[in-house]
Amino acid sequence: MKVLVIGTGAAGLTTASTIRKYNSDIEITVLTQENYIAYSPCAIPYVIGKEIKDFKTIVMHEPEDYAKKNVEILINSEVVDINADEKTVVYKKADEINEIKYDKLVLATGGTPFIPPIEGVNSKGVFKVRTIQDGMDIQNYINKNGVKKVVVAGAGAIGMEMAYCLKEIGIDVSVIEMVPQIFPRALDPDMAKIVQNYLEEENTSEDAKLNIILEKPVGKIIADDNGAVCGVMVGEETLEAQMVIMSTGVRSNIALAQKAGCKIGRWAVLTDEIMETSVADVYAVGDCVEVVDAITGEQTLSPFGTTAVRQAKVVGKNIAKLENAPVSKPVLNSNVTKIGKLEIAGTGMSEIGAGMNNIEVITTITKSASRARYYPGGKPIYIKLIVKKDDNRVIGCQAIGEERVTERIDAMSIAISKGVTVEELANMEFSYAPPVSMVVDPLFLAAENTVEKIKKENQ
Amino acid sequence: MKVLVIGTGAAGLTTASTIRKYNSDIEITVLTQENYIAYSPCAIPYVIGKEIKDFKTIVMHEPEDYAKKNVEILINSEVVDINADEKTVVYKKADEINEIKYDKLVLATGGTPFIPPIEGVNSKGVFKVRTIQDGMDIQNYINKNGVKKVVVAGAGAIGMEMAYCLKEIGIDVSVIEMVPQIFPRALDPDMAKIVQNYLEEENTSEDAKLNIILEKPVGKIIADDNGAVCGVMVGEETLEAQMVIMSTGVRSNIALAQKAGCKIGRWAVLTDEIMETSVADVYAVGDCVEVVDAITGEQTLSPFGTTAVRQAKVVGKNIAKLENAPVSKPVLNSNVTKIGKLEIAGTGMSEIGAGMNNIEVITTITKSASRARYYPGGKPIYIKLIVKKDDNRVIGCQAIGEERVTERIDAMSIAISKGVTVEELANMEFSYAPPVSMVVDPLFLAAENTVEKIKKENQ
Repeated sequence: MKVLVIGTGAAGLTTASTIRKYNSDIEITVLTQENYIAYSPCAIPYVIGKEIKDFKTIVMHEPEDYAKKNVEILINSEVVDINADEKTVVYKKADEINEIKYDKLVLATGGTPFIPPIEGVNSKGVFKVRTIQDGMDIQNYINKNGVKKVVVAGAGAIGMEMAYCLKEIGIDVSVIEMVPQIFPRALDPDMAKIVQNYLEEENTSEDAKLNIILEKPVGKIIADDNGAVCGVMVGEETLEAQMVIMSTGVRSNIALAQKAGCKIGRWAVLTDEIMETSVADVYAVGDCVEVVDAITGEQTLSPFGTTAVRQAKVVGKNIAKLENAPVSKPVLNSNVTKIGKLEIAGTGMSEIGAGMNNIEVITTITKSASRARYYPGGKPIYIKLIVKKDDNRVIGCQAIGEERVTERIDAMSIAISKGVTVEELANMEFSYAPPVSMVVDPLFLAAENTVEKIKKENQ
Repeated sequence: MKVLVIGTGAAGLTTASTIRKYNSDIEITVLTQENYIAYSPCAIPYVIGKEIKDFKTIVMHEPEDYAKKNVEILINSEVVDINADEKTVVYKKADEINEIKYDKLVLATGGTPFIPPIEGVNSKGVFKVRTIQDGMDIQNYINKNGVKKVVVAGAGAIGMEMAYCLKEIGIDVSVIEMVPQIFPRALDPDMAKIVQNYLEEENTSEDAKLNIILEKPVGKIIADDNGAVCGVMVGEETLEAQMVIMSTGVRSNIALAQKAGCKIGRWAVLTDEIMETSVADVYAVGDCVEVVDAITGEQTLSPFGTTAVRQAKVVGKNIAKLENAPVSKPVLNSNVTKIGKLEIAGTGMSEIGAGMNNIEVITTITKSASRARYYPGGKPIYIKLIVKKDDNRVIGCQAIGEERVTERIDAMSIAISKGVTVEELANMEFSYAPPVSMVVDPLFLAAENTVEKIKKENQ
């Protein structure tokens, strides 16, 4: 059997590795139009910010590493057509057109940054952040042009990570966001405000500044005589800037799936629970597919490396015909980012999301701490719980703090996926030692506060 | 109504605070034979090690703070008798004997270090570690006598914490343990060995040394002409030591419960699920009670501050007649300690414990890391999973690492208490960002490894 995988991101390469791990006979070829494979796109901002030494460091494997495992990688190879009836794929390498046959095809085509049609958006110095090449281009442009001021369009996770990392290398950054909050997808407005205050308080130092401008679109990018960015219009104001980062969302790459005849949902490719599309022997994984939301049961997107890897393990184990192979589960879209010292994480439904889905919720934000209050170095932790009114189940959690945030969200991911009620959480067992936690865990306290709020509202 | 609480540890004071939080009318008096209240006994080693400035810092409240909440605290007041028929308690303060009436009595009498009858154990310089007074006595003795070498008898959590903290202030420490491993209650031998290797590798520096001597009892404590410790016999060898710390276990304080006529189990006071003893209107919470083991359903002990606080909240909310007040749940005995940089944590059943309870298990130890492998500062994490053979449910987890360990154990506490199977865990959703986690979470990887081991054993 021959398996063809299109895409060398987390989804594509994990699919290939998983098949090989459980089956040494299947032929595996992975195609990518990129020059680099097996790098971590999530790490790009941290290389820019010099938290990670260089781009080479975030490339985890070379094609030769896969060749040793008998997985063929074809780089710089752009797939231009798929014929699902004949089970063939046509790709272009340099100027050569090749055809390749498959028994099973896995689409791991990922997503592409959405760039809104703003005037001047094609000027020199306007960048997106998706591939390692994007990262290298940004770094080169900064070094060559002595960039001092940058505008970041879009205050989602990638935009905020880029903004902070640029500030870390001494660049003044303005983040422009159309909606009235930062992290519009990951956080509710009240939690986003906590992060914003934290970042704005850091601006009192002599270092570079990170300015956040909300409820305004980028109006126009202004270029100089050489066609290079020199300013950005935001409302009535013109901001000086030698570079613009467009972090204005990502769209699933569905063109190839469409060529294969796969059914497309509202945004991306539809699959069953073993990631097979509507076309027999064509599978899809990662940012190019739709998934089921664990809370609403509706279709949604889950553009996270972790989801890609889980799906790739599902498809890999199923293609390798592993006994009791797993199936893809509905998602909570657990997510985390680190902005400077701050961990910002969430899982499940937000309050905003609940409103949009007509789910009545009770929410609380509890400020607590990461260590016993007398133990030096403890930091505040803010926890927001979102609890469904009809059955008191916890359906969402967001957390912010300088330490011990990420794994608490993972704990809540488990709790939510197992249907834990807030009363259960307010009587759950946590571990404790003064240097690492409080005797009443922040999650326990958050749950207890929510139980009390529910009682009060019911009185 | 008048509630009398005996004991001002976490159990007793949380009981008082919880009742007061939900009811402003109930009269509350708390008695203790100690001089200090509301301090954290878990913090004593860290004060000795100067990680925390002084003992004053770990005292969180004074009796006056409780007086403001209309909770009366009687310090230096030793309860000498209980008459449950007449609902009276007799206590001694200075030389005065007083009687006090109650409507409900809460025993939060805690535990007392068990000191084995070793020759020389009453010498000057032999200490236990339980109360803040013990801690202050140890610190004074070190300062007055220029202690350079210490023997710690018992390699449980308290012994190991004390040993490490003494080393941190420049004292050579030998820990003597009868069984063939450190952390005999919290860890399996294979995980304990990882901690031991880590600690022994630290000994290569010029600093004070921490030596671990296993499978040997403390034979005799040798005193000089002034009756002060000068050495300890361990097997054939005599170790020089100016101080001995006895961390050889704790026994529940049940004498007062016996006076009240409460039924006692194998080790401690028996209660129902709202913490009421066999005697009407007499409750018991904290280290003096037995609890139910969540895995075996058998009686066990749970001498942890977290358990004490949960139980105190249960009894407090029930005495305050809170609607839908919680009940006490079986325990997993989640626990964590920090030894130097190392977090050492566990929850649920150990492999050793499973063997003693005739539960067939499959176990794995997975070495993973705390951050993406290219992100600077990542540290190894070791995770041991203990999975029941008949239904593949995870029943225990132990973890060791320099960061991001504690909350993973809390996540596993939730997972185990909700009956998660190892297959479910190997398909569970975790959050990811390079500075804070790996794209395949250490727990996910541990679960996947265990699933594979199960498959292989079934072949």
